[in-house]
Amino acid sequence: MSRYWSDIVHRLTPYVPGEQPVVTHPVKLNTNENPYPPSPRVLEAIRQELGDAAESLRRYPDPTAQKLRETVAAYHGIRAEQVFAGNGSDEVLALTFQALLKHDKPLLFPDVTYSFYPTYARLFEVDYRTIPLDDSFTIHVDDYMSPNGGILFPNPNAPTGRPLPLADIERLVASSPDSVVVIDEAYVDFGAQSAIGLIDRYPNLLVVQTVSKSRSLAGMRVGFAFGNPDLIGALNRVKDSFNSYPLDRLAQAAAAAAYEDDAWFRDTCAKVVASRERLAAGLTALGFEVLPSAANLLFARHEGYDAATLALRLRDKEIFVRHFKAPRIDQHLRISVGTDAECDILLDALRDIFSAYVG
Amino acid sequence: MSRYWSDIVHRLTPYVPGEQPVVTHPVKLNTNENPYPPSPRVLEAIRQELGDAAESLRRYPDPTAQKLRETVAAYHGIRAEQVFAGNGSDEVLALTFQALLKHDKPLLFPDVTYSFYPTYARLFEVDYRTIPLDDSFTIHVDDYMSPNGGILFPNPNAPTGRPLPLADIERLVASSPDSVVVIDEAYVDFGAQSAIGLIDRYPNLLVVQTVSKSRSLAGMRVGFAFGNPDLIGALNRVKDSFNSYPLDRLAQAAAAAAYEDDAWFRDTCAKVVASRERLAAGLTALGFEVLPSAANLLFARHEGYDAATLALRLRDKEIFVRHFKAPRIDQHLRISVGTDAECDILLDALRDIFSAYVG
Repeated sequence: MSRYWSDIVHRLTPYVPGEQPVVTHPVKLNTNENPYPPSPRVLEAIRQELGDAAESLRRYPDPTAQKLRETVAAYHGIRAEQVFAGNGSDEVLALTFQALLKHDKPLLFPDVTYSFYPTYARLFEVDYRTIPLDDSFTIHVDDYMSPNGGILFPNPNAPTGRPLPLADIERLVASSPDSVVVIDEAYVDFGAQSAIGLIDRYPNLLVVQTVSKSRSLAGMRVGFAFGNPDLIGALNRVKDSFNSYPLDRLAQAAAAAAYEDDAWFRDTCAKVVASRERLAAGLTALGFEVLPSAANLLFARHEGYDAATLALRLRDKEIFVRHFKAPRIDQHLRISVGTDAECDILLDALRDIFSAYVG
Repeated sequence: MSRYWSDIVHRLTPYVPGEQPVVTHPVKLNTNENPYPPSPRVLEAIRQELGDAAESLRRYPDPTAQKLRETVAAYHGIRAEQVFAGNGSDEVLALTFQALLKHDKPLLFPDVTYSFYPTYARLFEVDYRTIPLDDSFTIHVDDYMSPNGGILFPNPNAPTGRPLPLADIERLVASSPDSVVVIDEAYVDFGAQSAIGLIDRYPNLLVVQTVSKSRSLAGMRVGFAFGNPDLIGALNRVKDSFNSYPLDRLAQAAAAAAYEDDAWFRDTCAKVVASRERLAAGLTALGFEVLPSAANLLFARHEGYDAATLALRLRDKEIFVRHFKAPRIDQHLRISVGTDAECDILLDALRDIFSAYVG
């Protein structure tokens, strides 16, 4: 509390990202990073950009990230003016709240979802209402048909990993012509269907993606929004009133290269999906209830063990998973899918903990 | 204009950054980039971060940029909790508007200054009043003593390069205990005195700096704010409600390395200062009035030639300088200081243009 702070600062509840462990070799299954590195072409592209440093790092990057946007547009079979690039999908989402989701009627999003959404809403003073998931943590799009100033949810949803069929999303978008519908596809590449193919038909649809998960580039901070040029234009107007150059030269080069190696991307996603199914079976065998997931994470609870305690016991073993102290989900753990070896370390540790459990 | 846009989007006037020429070898004196590359240690630090890419790029960066902040704090003889790091000083300034400069009374800044300030004010709906510079484009701190919700100016000022003595800044800060005073020191290393040494004594002083100019890293997007932990705390609260990880891994490594090579930094600044004085003499000899500058730029006018026309004629020769269509300064050119060779190309081109001038 300070007299120097703007009023809004007192009312914020900042997002708390997952812990970045300081131990040397953690089993880090708490922030949904990819267990596999990015394509070697990414490193090659960065080295190439560095090669002529005199003409590179001292110069401002392209404020419009034109080459990157063209690359990603070509990948998705759309046009560059349908693509917005930002500093991770978190920044893209923040700009979206400010540019497209602040209206007289409330924004709608699920009660159990990415916990950054209410934080953005408070920062930009966006009125919002949460829509409860059903008891199986499923989104029902009919629940979002009431008058609203925007609709937002991830597909697959966070932190559950539960996907929604594309037909449901299209029905919602088609039924909500007066609202912007934002589908946050951070995890889509691990088994859900992207809505990008719908943006040509629906001027009210914005799709958000990131290179942090399926393209193994969480360290480089690049995210995208895909939509009608009218929606992209709003994002550009806000971005150019906030920070002209949010993407540095190496981030632009790295992200573009990641889209140029589709074989690496597909192979990495396939390995993560296989490990996810293997881990789900292992957790189920240990007595966990595991939600069906189309993401690189599993959301699981165990009737016999308190989730917060489990997370702490795992942390003692330098295994990091995410626990949310939040209504409805405080008995769940969100476990990022690691390599099979990492998943085995987790399963072994859980067996140890269970065998020694004193409640 | 769109029904999907938030109201604020319609009211914005986005900042327009200097042109990024697409020609191969432009003489680029329009965005105040450093003509010399960053320290070789910067490239080494990036390569080192890339060396173990499996454990680097796929992982989120440190959201607090702790190591970078410690490095910069040590450099300035302050503590890490007095340092905020952001995605270029533009993002730092944007967060400052939102976190510290929105109050009932108007923010004060000069009428001729960094043209992004009114853009930020509109984005965050910060009431502001501009204070005219005198006829020599000098800031008088006594003009900022009226009731206000914050005070902001660059030292040296943009786009003029005119510095203010530190004693004047201290007098203003000491006389304004109820206001946050923000000194934007983007250009300070080229000849003005930094106010960082005052932050321990004045809880209302925030100093903003960047690696884009004096540390030759415009391409990497890193800026800082220095101040009392209470002010830094407000910036962190807003940042963590907007984007937890604005600085990617390579940007953090690059910026820290730039502070670790002080000899390179001092040598580069000295070369730019020497070229500035040489260029000022050359322009004066051609009949320009050149403002005294403590930045890596010169602000100059010529009684005989229209500034906008001159900028266009230079552009035809692939020489880029900045012209602002703005009151009071539309007969000036802002010329970034290049190498002596680049400055000579500019002077030769001006001689050519003048000899062929038809008004």
